[in-house]
Amino acid sequence: MKAVFYAGNQTITSGTCVPVPPQKNEVQIQVAYGGICGTDLHIYHGAMDKRIKMPQVIGHEISGIVSAIGDDVDGFALGDRVAVMPLNIDKCLLRDATYSHICEHLEFIGIDSPGGFQSYWTVPAYTLHHLPKEMPLRYVALIEPLAVACHDIRLGQVQAGEEVVVLGGGPIGMLVAMTARSKGAKVLISEINPFRVEFARSLGIDAINPKERDLPAYVLEKTDGRGADVIFEVTGSAAGAEAMTQLPRIRGRIVVVGIFNKPQPIDLFRFFWRELNLQGARVYEHQDFDEAIALAASGKLALDRIITQVRPLEELQAGLQQMEGGGEVMKILLEVEPA
Amino acid sequence: MKAVFYAGNQTITSGTCVPVPPQKNEVQIQVAYGGICGTDLHIYHGAMDKRIKMPQVIGHEISGIVSAIGDDVDGFALGDRVAVMPLNIDKCLLRDATYSHICEHLEFIGIDSPGGFQSYWTVPAYTLHHLPKEMPLRYVALIEPLAVACHDIRLGQVQAGEEVVVLGGGPIGMLVAMTARSKGAKVLISEINPFRVEFARSLGIDAINPKERDLPAYVLEKTDGRGADVIFEVTGSAAGAEAMTQLPRIRGRIVVVGIFNKPQPIDLFRFFWRELNLQGARVYEHQDFDEAIALAASGKLALDRIITQVRPLEELQAGLQQMEGGGEVMKILLEVEPA
Repeated sequence: MKAVFYAGNQTITSGTCVPVPPQKNEVQIQVAYGGICGTDLHIYHGAMDKRIKMPQVIGHEISGIVSAIGDDVDGFALGDRVAVMPLNIDKCLLRDATYSHICEHLEFIGIDSPGGFQSYWTVPAYTLHHLPKEMPLRYVALIEPLAVACHDIRLGQVQAGEEVVVLGGGPIGMLVAMTARSKGAKVLISEINPFRVEFARSLGIDAINPKERDLPAYVLEKTDGRGADVIFEVTGSAAGAEAMTQLPRIRGRIVVVGIFNKPQPIDLFRFFWRELNLQGARVYEHQDFDEAIALAASGKLALDRIITQVRPLEELQAGLQQMEGGGEVMKILLEVEPA
Repeated sequence: MKAVFYAGNQTITSGTCVPVPPQKNEVQIQVAYGGICGTDLHIYHGAMDKRIKMPQVIGHEISGIVSAIGDDVDGFALGDRVAVMPLNIDKCLLRDATYSHICEHLEFIGIDSPGGFQSYWTVPAYTLHHLPKEMPLRYVALIEPLAVACHDIRLGQVQAGEEVVVLGGGPIGMLVAMTARSKGAKVLISEINPFRVEFARSLGIDAINPKERDLPAYVLEKTDGRGADVIFEVTGSAAGAEAMTQLPRIRGRIVVVGIFNKPQPIDLFRFFWRELNLQGARVYEHQDFDEAIALAASGKLALDRIITQVRPLEELQAGLQQMEGGGEVMKILLEVEPA
């Protein structure tokens, strides 16, 4: 029974998982796979040290099988395959928050409390979603980032036939693009990593490198001079913040998904002049998890392609270093062998 | 028959109005009153010289009476009282634009073509809206800025009971505040001009000077720590761009009405974290004019209070200089005496 811990100072340690017996309204799952998220990389870099009690098990993109059930839990049985929506909303429920997924009392499981990079993980029952029996557990580890994409697409109100531009072709950007395409949108990805540009193209998604080609001119050309209907900003970069207002059509929409660590110069005149709309989008709600599961089960998305590596749990640090290096990486999964 | 002209270089000249006979689909109106807009002040300062053919009659907040009718005009008779929605959309109609009021081929009458600071003014018939007989023509000159406010409130989706903050208490900000209140919203104006702070209070609208009092703290206090539902940014200032993201509740809305002459540092992290929405809003659509007329006719708004001065047409330059000086000014009307 294994666990890996973030110990501060860019250090990951391996140790033993101490299974936590589920209390009332909790479920314990035997973890099968865990995806490494960009947020885990931020944690590794120390950017979230204030929220973490070191050494702490991290990881929140998890698939697994129900291994123990606490009191008063309905609807789940031992052996059920589940995805975890890693939001602890206990304190939000006490306050009757309208938007519990972005409530200020929300605790993100895997940051504010122990995550799933371990053999057994105990979570509130309300975080669980049932999964179709035939879905490979590797894919299930992608449900969490796919739910992010479904949330972004929903808040962006993407319609069939619309022209969509995704700024940033990492795992979230790629899943946003794939989800938009599954809605019938025409999608362009803007990405500076040549591997990711080629990766998008290999999925049949139009992609360009904005350092090599004039992005606004290309979008105008693709849209008969109108501009795109919806822009997803998934880079968190100054270049993305600048591009996002240049690309939309009159009354076009921008969805800010990327995490910006400082204020960015934004062309507010263009918001006024073209009546643009900007919507911030963070994590997901239960309906987005439901949609992600249905979309994954439909087989419409090439989820197997997104998984570029599967490593044993103990190689979390090597996986993080691989992500740091950029290059030929999309999603790295950690495989947690049965105890 | 008089006219006043913008002649460039901060110069206004007086001259003679040459009435333009209405062509097919046009109507000539005898102008009664014209409001001086902040945009007229921008013109006077030379900021729009590229769009203007000097010397040019400016002015676009106009009330008047139909004095001549071109061929093929239905629904208007000599003597009808009308408000003018000063958007020439001839070129937009040719292109079947979805949003003609912000179409890139739009011509703003009074900037891109002669305005209404003259005795007789000829405009496309589709710009006209009928007015109730009992409405004083002075008030009618306020329909255009009131339509801006109605458009802003509509795009901000203001609901009864919501907490609204208006950044900037000039004529548009004040009309936005009054219109929001007429919808049942609770309104706060943030304004640095002491006269305007007192003016808002004299209308029964809560107002503070953000240089004297901590605006974010005050908004939190007023909203039980939640933040406001909707923020209207009507200052076009760096301080407004900074404040607008600090004040909304989770999933709160921001409407950008102010005109920013350069990019502003914007806290995009807060858009992400609280899932804020920002909507740009420019001019109006016909339904906003209809609503402005109905609202003015209802007597719910203290429109008489907004008019702080009425000057003869020839005093346009003095009126502009008075606006430049700030101080005790809201809306200055020019009165155009019958020929």
